[in-house]
Amino acid sequence: MPHIEVRYLLQCLEKDAPARADLLRLEQSVELPRAALSERFVLEEVVPEIGAIEARGEQRTAVTLRFSSHTVADDPAQLPNLLFGNSSLLPDVTLEALRLPPSLDALLPGPRFGLEGLREALDAPRRPLSASALKPLGHGPERLAELARTLARGGIDVIKDDHGLADHTYCPFAERVAACQRAVEEVAEETGHRALYVPNVIGTPETMARQLDLCRELGVGGVMSAPMLVGLPTFYEWVRKVDRPALAHPALAGCGKMSPAVLFGTLFRAYGADASIFPHLGGRFAYTADECHALADALRGPDGPRRAALPVPAGGMDAARAAEIVRFYGPDVMLLIGGSLQLAGDALLERTREFTAELRRAGAALAEGDTP
Amino acid sequence: MPHIEVRYLLQCLEKDAPARADLLRLEQSVELPRAALSERFVLEEVVPEIGAIEARGEQRTAVTLRFSSHTVADDPAQLPNLLFGNSSLLPDVTLEALRLPPSLDALLPGPRFGLEGLREALDAPRRPLSASALKPLGHGPERLAELARTLARGGIDVIKDDHGLADHTYCPFAERVAACQRAVEEVAEETGHRALYVPNVIGTPETMARQLDLCRELGVGGVMSAPMLVGLPTFYEWVRKVDRPALAHPALAGCGKMSPAVLFGTLFRAYGADASIFPHLGGRFAYTADECHALADALRGPDGPRRAALPVPAGGMDAARAAEIVRFYGPDVMLLIGGSLQLAGDALLERTREFTAELRRAGAALAEGDTP
Repeated sequence: MPHIEVRYLLQCLEKDAPARADLLRLEQSVELPRAALSERFVLEEVVPEIGAIEARGEQRTAVTLRFSSHTVADDPAQLPNLLFGNSSLLPDVTLEALRLPPSLDALLPGPRFGLEGLREALDAPRRPLSASALKPLGHGPERLAELARTLARGGIDVIKDDHGLADHTYCPFAERVAACQRAVEEVAEETGHRALYVPNVIGTPETMARQLDLCRELGVGGVMSAPMLVGLPTFYEWVRKVDRPALAHPALAGCGKMSPAVLFGTLFRAYGADASIFPHLGGRFAYTADECHALADALRGPDGPRRAALPVPAGGMDAARAAEIVRFYGPDVMLLIGGSLQLAGDALLERTREFTAELRRAGAALAEGDTP
Repeated sequence: MPHIEVRYLLQCLEKDAPARADLLRLEQSVELPRAALSERFVLEEVVPEIGAIEARGEQRTAVTLRFSSHTVADDPAQLPNLLFGNSSLLPDVTLEALRLPPSLDALLPGPRFGLEGLREALDAPRRPLSASALKPLGHGPERLAELARTLARGGIDVIKDDHGLADHTYCPFAERVAACQRAVEEVAEETGHRALYVPNVIGTPETMARQLDLCRELGVGGVMSAPMLVGLPTFYEWVRKVDRPALAHPALAGCGKMSPAVLFGTLFRAYGADASIFPHLGGRFAYTADECHALADALRGPDGPRRAALPVPAGGMDAARAAEIVRFYGPDVMLLIGGSLQLAGDALLERTREFTAELRRAGAALAEGDTP
């Protein structure tokens, strides 16, 4: 019987962990007290098995549960429900690690393009990739298109909408996407550097479908959406209709209840994100080096038949940190730098060129270091 | 200019709060450093104003931001993005209170039926209402229908699927819903007590639409879904097609990053939930009395043109607590009791009758107390 292995971290002493683990497995499956259960199928095949129990310092214990994969019912909404539906409401439980069994591979085939597909689309087989964001909210389509033009001329690979850009009266989705796509196409003709413009798709499922249709008509190279904002199952279904790379944004993902590696790594990849944006350590957010490494591993490491997805560290980073970040993640990474470039004001083009050149040098230095 | 007022709780000293509030308002709007901003419209109309700053003990400060409502772009996905998109990822920020301006009333009309609509459907104009859940996962349609029959005979008002019931091979959605709906209809003919059977609608938007169609065909009286699991904007769009009361389930809603009153109260109501299920204090979860009162107020209190929604306290409560819970919430409440009834085993019908009778007594005692 193939199992989904889930490791939870509980705030409790090791001696209390077996009892807590028993309550946790009932909460996440039958939601009934043990005394109300009698049927063998329910007890053996629906209530998950308790696996390893390991102390983690004074007051924390890791507990692994093993769920039968039939409990997922081939439903991309039921999986997160099963993993963490009720227990996400408990203050002292976090979800730390997740292993999906081969029996879920058909349901969760993962990225359609992934890291390699993005590299192909960008004609950049080995080097670290760059990204920047069109912002602020409040600027109109033409100003954002001008920004896209400058960033593309500066050599940025992926130019994405800020996730705060929706369909505002002063910056309508249709006009913005048309103007920004035209800008990157013009720069491609002018310089040969073909940046990928990636609009932010946001709204209800029907709005997302309409926006996607427009992206297709206008020939944009990729799209972005925030799985926790639009809903994981909605993201899943939408991605299946997106015939170009899809970036995942971490908006509304909460903090720390699911480890970043599970949420932005394993789950976003399983649900079809080709690249996943997340806060890198040392920026405005508080992730640790270990969390960032684990997240990158969850996106790029072997994971059944699922293509590798591209890690996109972001969150208040500085272009000056390019070399350091490339050493941290290796070459299979896309650095997303927004605000620190825009601080350059009129010198934006120059600052962008310095950043992309620095990134190429960092990639080259790494490649040389690889070959002793 | 109508504003959305949002109060955040920051872990910081009062003296540091103005600087933190300034960073927070940039994060939640333009996502650029102040030095990169120059346009007056952006600075005055897009970046939110800072309102009250109040110390809350040693290390915590409440900060109110006032967002222009045009930043929502009439998009039910953009609202939560704007309120908490990036900052939900910060470990030391929680969202504590939310006031929606009249300018968002057209976008967010709230419940279509609400508390009064549910009372009408149940022909129960004043008394506290009862609910129970069909479970465990692992039982087939006929066994769950038998359970529904017993609960209906015992006088339960709303009999809902457990949120863990999806479209499992051993309990297909179509068969389960048909069998359980038939069960409550038969009991209605037999006893005159017409319970509302409420299936759990779960899946991608397309699956949810198919399930809703089936619910309509079979004439079920209400439906349930989990807004944070399927996505708030997906729930919003789906509810608009649901021509019967919709219950919201709190699955996957995380813990404590948004106050229960904002998430399960203000937002779920604004997005159209007619009733909202949440963990009552003293059960398996950890909400306080103040949080539960605030949540009930957010669901039932005046809120622009939005109908009152019904609070549904749940989460490991005991039927013996019925009177206490009714005193706590008053008569406009629905008590959801699942596991503690099922512990009765073969005496389930009797235990259920005791519970619904106790609830009627508690309601009557309260009504008498109301009339001095």
